[in-house]
Amino acid sequence: MSTTMQAVVKAHAAPGIEMREVPVPVPGPGEVLVRVQAASVCGTDLHIYNWDQWAQGRIHPPLIPGHEFSGAVAGVGAGVTAVKEGDFVSAEMHVACGKCLQCRIGQAHICQHVRILGLDANGAFANYVIIPETNIWKLSPTIPRDWCSLLDPLGNAVHTVLAGPIAAQTVLITGCGAIGLFSIAVAKACGAAKVFALEVNAHRRAVAATMGADLVLDSSAENTENIKEQILEATGGTGVDVLLEMSGHPAAIRLGFGLLRTGGRASLLGIPSRPIELDFATNIIFKGATVQGINGRKMYENWFQMEALLASGKLNLEPVITHRLKLSEFSKGMEYLQSGEAIKVVFKLE
Amino acid sequence: MSTTMQAVVKAHAAPGIEMREVPVPVPGPGEVLVRVQAASVCGTDLHIYNWDQWAQGRIHPPLIPGHEFSGAVAGVGAGVTAVKEGDFVSAEMHVACGKCLQCRIGQAHICQHVRILGLDANGAFANYVIIPETNIWKLSPTIPRDWCSLLDPLGNAVHTVLAGPIAAQTVLITGCGAIGLFSIAVAKACGAAKVFALEVNAHRRAVAATMGADLVLDSSAENTENIKEQILEATGGTGVDVLLEMSGHPAAIRLGFGLLRTGGRASLLGIPSRPIELDFATNIIFKGATVQGINGRKMYENWFQMEALLASGKLNLEPVITHRLKLSEFSKGMEYLQSGEAIKVVFKLE
Amino acid sequence: MSTTMQAVVKAHAAPGIEMREVPVPVPGPGEVLVRVQAASVCGTDLHIYNWDQWAQGRIHPPLIPGHEFSGAVAGVGAGVTAVKEGDFVSAEMHVACGKCLQCRIGQAHICQHVRILGLDANGAFANYVIIPETNIWKLSPTIPRDWCSLLDPLGNAVHTVLAGPIAAQTVLITGCGAIGLFSIAVAKACGAAKVFALEVNAHRRAVAATMGADLVLDSSAENTENIKEQILEATGGTGVDVLLEMSGHPAAIRLGFGLLRTGGRASLLGIPSRPIELDFATNIIFKGATVQGINGRKMYENWFQMEALLASGKLNLEPVITHRLKLSEFSKGMEYLQSGEAIKVVFKLE
Amino acid sequence: MSTTMQAVVKAHAAPGIEMREVPVPVPGPGEVLVRVQAASVCGTDLHIYNWDQWAQGRIHPPLIPGHEFSGAVAGVGAGVTAVKEGDFVSAEMHVACGKCLQCRIGQAHICQHVRILGLDANGAFANYVIIPETNIWKLSPTIPRDWCSLLDPLGNAVHTVLAGPIAAQTVLITGCGAIGLFSIAVAKACGAAKVFALEVNAHRRAVAATMGADLVLDSSAENTENIKEQILEATGGTGVDVLLEMSGHPAAIRLGFGLLRTGGRASLLGIPSRPIELDFATNIIFKGATVQGINGRKMYENWFQMEALLASGKLNLEPVITHRLKLSEFSKGMEYLQSGEAIKVVFKLE
Repeated sequence: MSTTMQAVVKAHAAPGIEMREVPVPVPGPGEVLVRVQAASVCGTDLHIYNWDQWAQGRIHPPLIPGHEFSGAVAGVGAGVTAVKEGDFVSAEMHVACGKCLQCRIGQAHICQHVRILGLDANGAFANYVIIPETNIWKLSPTIPRDWCSLLDPLGNAVHTVLAGPIAAQTVLITGCGAIGLFSIAVAKACGAAKVFALEVNAHRRAVAATMGADLVLDSSAENTENIKEQILEATGGTGVDVLLEMSGHPAAIRLGFGLLRTGGRASLLGIPSRPIELDFATNIIFKGATVQGINGRKMYENWFQMEALLASGKLNLEPVITHRLKLSEFSKGMEYLQSGEAIKVVFKLE
Repeated sequence: MSTTMQAVVKAHAAPGIEMREVPVPVPGPGEVLVRVQAASVCGTDLHIYNWDQWAQGRIHPPLIPGHEFSGAVAGVGAGVTAVKEGDFVSAEMHVACGKCLQCRIGQAHICQHVRILGLDANGAFANYVIIPETNIWKLSPTIPRDWCSLLDPLGNAVHTVLAGPIAAQTVLITGCGAIGLFSIAVAKACGAAKVFALEVNAHRRAVAATMGADLVLDSSAENTENIKEQILEATGGTGVDVLLEMSGHPAAIRLGFGLLRTGGRASLLGIPSRPIELDFATNIIFKGATVQGINGRKMYENWFQMEALLASGKLNLEPVITHRLKLSEFSKGMEYLQSGEAIKVVFKLE
Repeated sequence: MSTTMQAVVKAHAAPGIEMREVPVPVPGPGEVLVRVQAASVCGTDLHIYNWDQWAQGRIHPPLIPGHEFSGAVAGVGAGVTAVKEGDFVSAEMHVACGKCLQCRIGQAHICQHVRILGLDANGAFANYVIIPETNIWKLSPTIPRDWCSLLDPLGNAVHTVLAGPIAAQTVLITGCGAIGLFSIAVAKACGAAKVFALEVNAHRRAVAATMGADLVLDSSAENTENIKEQILEATGGTGVDVLLEMSGHPAAIRLGFGLLRTGGRASLLGIPSRPIELDFATNIIFKGATVQGINGRKMYENWFQMEALLASGKLNLEPVITHRLKLSEFSKGMEYLQSGEAIKVVFKLE
Repeated sequence: MSTTMQAVVKAHAAPGIEMREVPVPVPGPGEVLVRVQAASVCGTDLHIYNWDQWAQGRIHPPLIPGHEFSGAVAGVGAGVTAVKEGDFVSAEMHVACGKCLQCRIGQAHICQHVRILGLDANGAFANYVIIPETNIWKLSPTIPRDWCSLLDPLGNAVHTVLAGPIAAQTVLITGCGAIGLFSIAVAKACGAAKVFALEVNAHRRAVAATMGADLVLDSSAENTENIKEQILEATGGTGVDVLLEMSGHPAAIRLGFGLLRTGGRASLLGIPSRPIELDFATNIIFKGATVQGINGRKMYENWFQMEALLASGKLNLEPVITHRLKLSEFSKGMEYLQSGEAIKVVFKLE
């Protein structure tokens, strides 16, 4: 094994990244060294690349970003028993403190002191990455390997969809980025009666249909009345049982709440960039709605669910992967994402 | 409309039935008259036919039995607004009192004073049946009509399967009568990871496989060790997440509890004919299990769920219908059931 | 029994009311005539009195308002079996349609076609009121009679407090009107660890302490930083487990969400008069919060709970009743409420 | 600090114990050394003392038993940050593996590979005990110190009582050992409407009344009909909402189930020594009951709840402590327990 590796490095507090040759890290006690075989790009990585305001406040260069990956265990530190060299793995990259209130009552996914690999410490855009044993996830050989770098966003979708009843429910998904698209597949696999998807981007709408949405509508502002009409008609006038909000856009959030039936569930995953104005009286209080904030993946219930759904062949993630590139083509991948041409870009490493 | 009709009548406190010509009933205020188009047979009807001990204690002849049916509204009493003549309907045949504690806290399916049409009052083995407006269920035209007499047992299956989490869960179904078979289809449609089915009757095992069970095993006593081995292996040694008990047999109940994982759910629908001996310490208490008694259909949540699942094309009930007969062939239908040759017998009326 | 009665009548589409002598109503089939013994005033009645914008859009004079009362059954229409003459009763004044989706899945409190007595039909500010049998609530003799006109707002408090776990939880109540004050008592009776109450009005703050709040703070704008400091300190820096929002004020809502712990529950009952701007990302999504809109009283689960809590002597409602008047003093009662001097005004009828 | 300590040692595979002077253990990495100040006796310890069949199958001498204690941190191993020397602590003595399915989905209290200190490794009947950092529980100074060795059984009570809704519910507790008695206090503190307690031992019945039970009845066989009559009368004929089974006795279990209302909850903690015969059809299935097996304490939700309830002054544990002895009086304590004279024996160490 070489002692150096190729890595995508956010070297400076400025836009862009550098490809660098850096030392292969050495796993300490309780740590696992993974040889990365595939790593995919999240919107967060684009923020880091562009060095926007959020990134400036959160990221401390130098850093190797990347928190979606799969690979093979290449070495283990002292005391590690969960995996052994050669095991095919992915990982939960939110490292919980284990000691706060939330960690101790089964809510580690909203740990007060969470540390995210790829944001707060080195991540997976490199030949090797170090993962704490607690967070490693050994993958069943029955899962299609080619999709295993996608478990982080797929887990977000599983978390959101299964945060309440879904079987026999009508579901509206606002926003068809990767997580919205995965949510279509998960909702259908889990017995949703009808899935309606809203999205402005025509290519993403086409993928939404492929993923199994029963009705896909253009969410451009001028189409709002048409959307209302069609979804009310398709739900017998009551509105949808479940809203899965994946866009973070104020207009989509308000439209989604407006189409939620009285007594329905709204699960919010998309992150608005600023405060939202909403008519709470009409949309939440009189409506008797339940609204859930969704963050990360429930550790590790969502991972077991995700693995079981994938292993049983119920999910097809392929349509969401629009580009497969080499890690050395990192900047090209960023461009595809910036342009809106790409949905999910996966880097394949040798 | 004729003033008389053909009816299957339990005329006397003795085995057997009679086909009789009786007056067509007249709907009172709040009542609906339905022209029966299809009526199917439940195990209960066989008890009534055979006049066994249970029937002797519960049934007061003369009675028209039958509580699984579909048909068209032929007339309505004063004040009825929920349906109109010609509507295609089925009905919940458990008529709840509306005034007991259970009825008033959303548990009408376990009403203290429930009256069951076809047991406590005339039912649907006749050209016409009277149903209270509260209990009529207007059917969407998108549901395959041919299966609509089966909503009562399908609703039992939906109640049992959806009484707890099912998506991404491993499920053991003990007993593949009609409700057990429907439960296979419902569990798979709602995202169950794997469904294991146990049944002694070879024909029913074949139907279980057709319904989508991932593994179907012969539950004959001599196969017990093989069952344990195969199910533990298929669940990584932990046992199943969910037990759906549909047989009422002591051995199946004990086997099922033994295969339930620590922390799992056991939903019991099958009715044991006498007290069961069970090791509560091992099977429930140390195991931290949740055990649910399942009775009837949740009014009317299970009906909405059932309709949504059927309308979305997720369920195929056809394999469970083994015989379609004329109502005049009632006794022949009973024989098919007695012999174990039939699973679900449907009588088609003109 | 006289054929006429005194009634408070909203006679015209204008501010104010009139005391009138009107015919005693006659109960039809399924209806109950109640002789009102006590009736209390809700904020809604003040809106009707003042004929504000909301009232102008909702109320169609002439109308007898009043939806909080208790009294004795004075007569029953055909078919009524739930109560008999002389029974001491109150009533749920939200009359649900019984036929919409929500009514049929156990959510009658958010019925799509609800009709509210005292708003949409004559109410209880009169010697007699007509109530449908379904909505009458026969009161246990063990409940203090003097508080029985208060079951409507007490039921709102019970609904809100018991909409999620409350035992051993820290609770923040924003707004100490009658429902907020009742919520303090209910939360303490049900095992809340600590109850913090915020209120601008000094008199209400004093009552909040009497009701059992562990810490009562002035919610005037200039006290905001002090509030944050004290509540964070009292919760070990994590914030409260449960927010019960009873004010409808934007600042209180934002303050409450800010003090909710990660993973906490926010139950919203207070009605904001216009859209609210809230930072959803920080307050709901990253926080993994559960937000519930609360409307009315769950029929009739909340009524059973309320009765059980009252009967067991766990609740003292007395401090909330600031004025007891004759019905003929109706306008005086309105003035006490306008001035902020009164919390709950009860009219006692002979 | 001395290098040796006094300890109760199960030295041989035979009845009895020995007081021995043994080396003070040394905490390894991630371990905490606690100076025991109080240790109390569980029924399990009596089994070990008597060396009955269960003990012979589970315990491997030599062993220091004892799993209920409180004390002060006397030293910490490498890496420990949760506590420091001098902190007042107790501990969860079920040490979960952290790696099995149950541990990873928030069910560590039913870990497949649990190791119990005081059973599978040395426990707290000694001057010092070693506890893994994960399991140490730092106690708030607001909790009465004198009760802090009782958190293990109090936690069982909290787990059982709060395993479902309890506010405004009627509750039947079968069996008034320490956990049953604690359950009375917890249920009342959390808003139970009425608590009925059954117990054969007259002294324990007196304590049950002191703990706040509304009705305490002698559960001797000859009193069965009287019990049924009184409890049905006190619940308006419906039976209780909640059964908390604390005895493990077949007759009590059957009596309890018989008195559970249709749709009620039965939470089972008492361990029957052999299989139980129960009429599942009547008591669980037709009844639509929910039955829960309760084991250990939810980690660490039940600990937070217990601490909050104690800190808020809602619980008085004193009546349950019948004897306070020196550790050197261990055998005398066993005799008090054997005779039924004692409920909870606490050993106070200097």
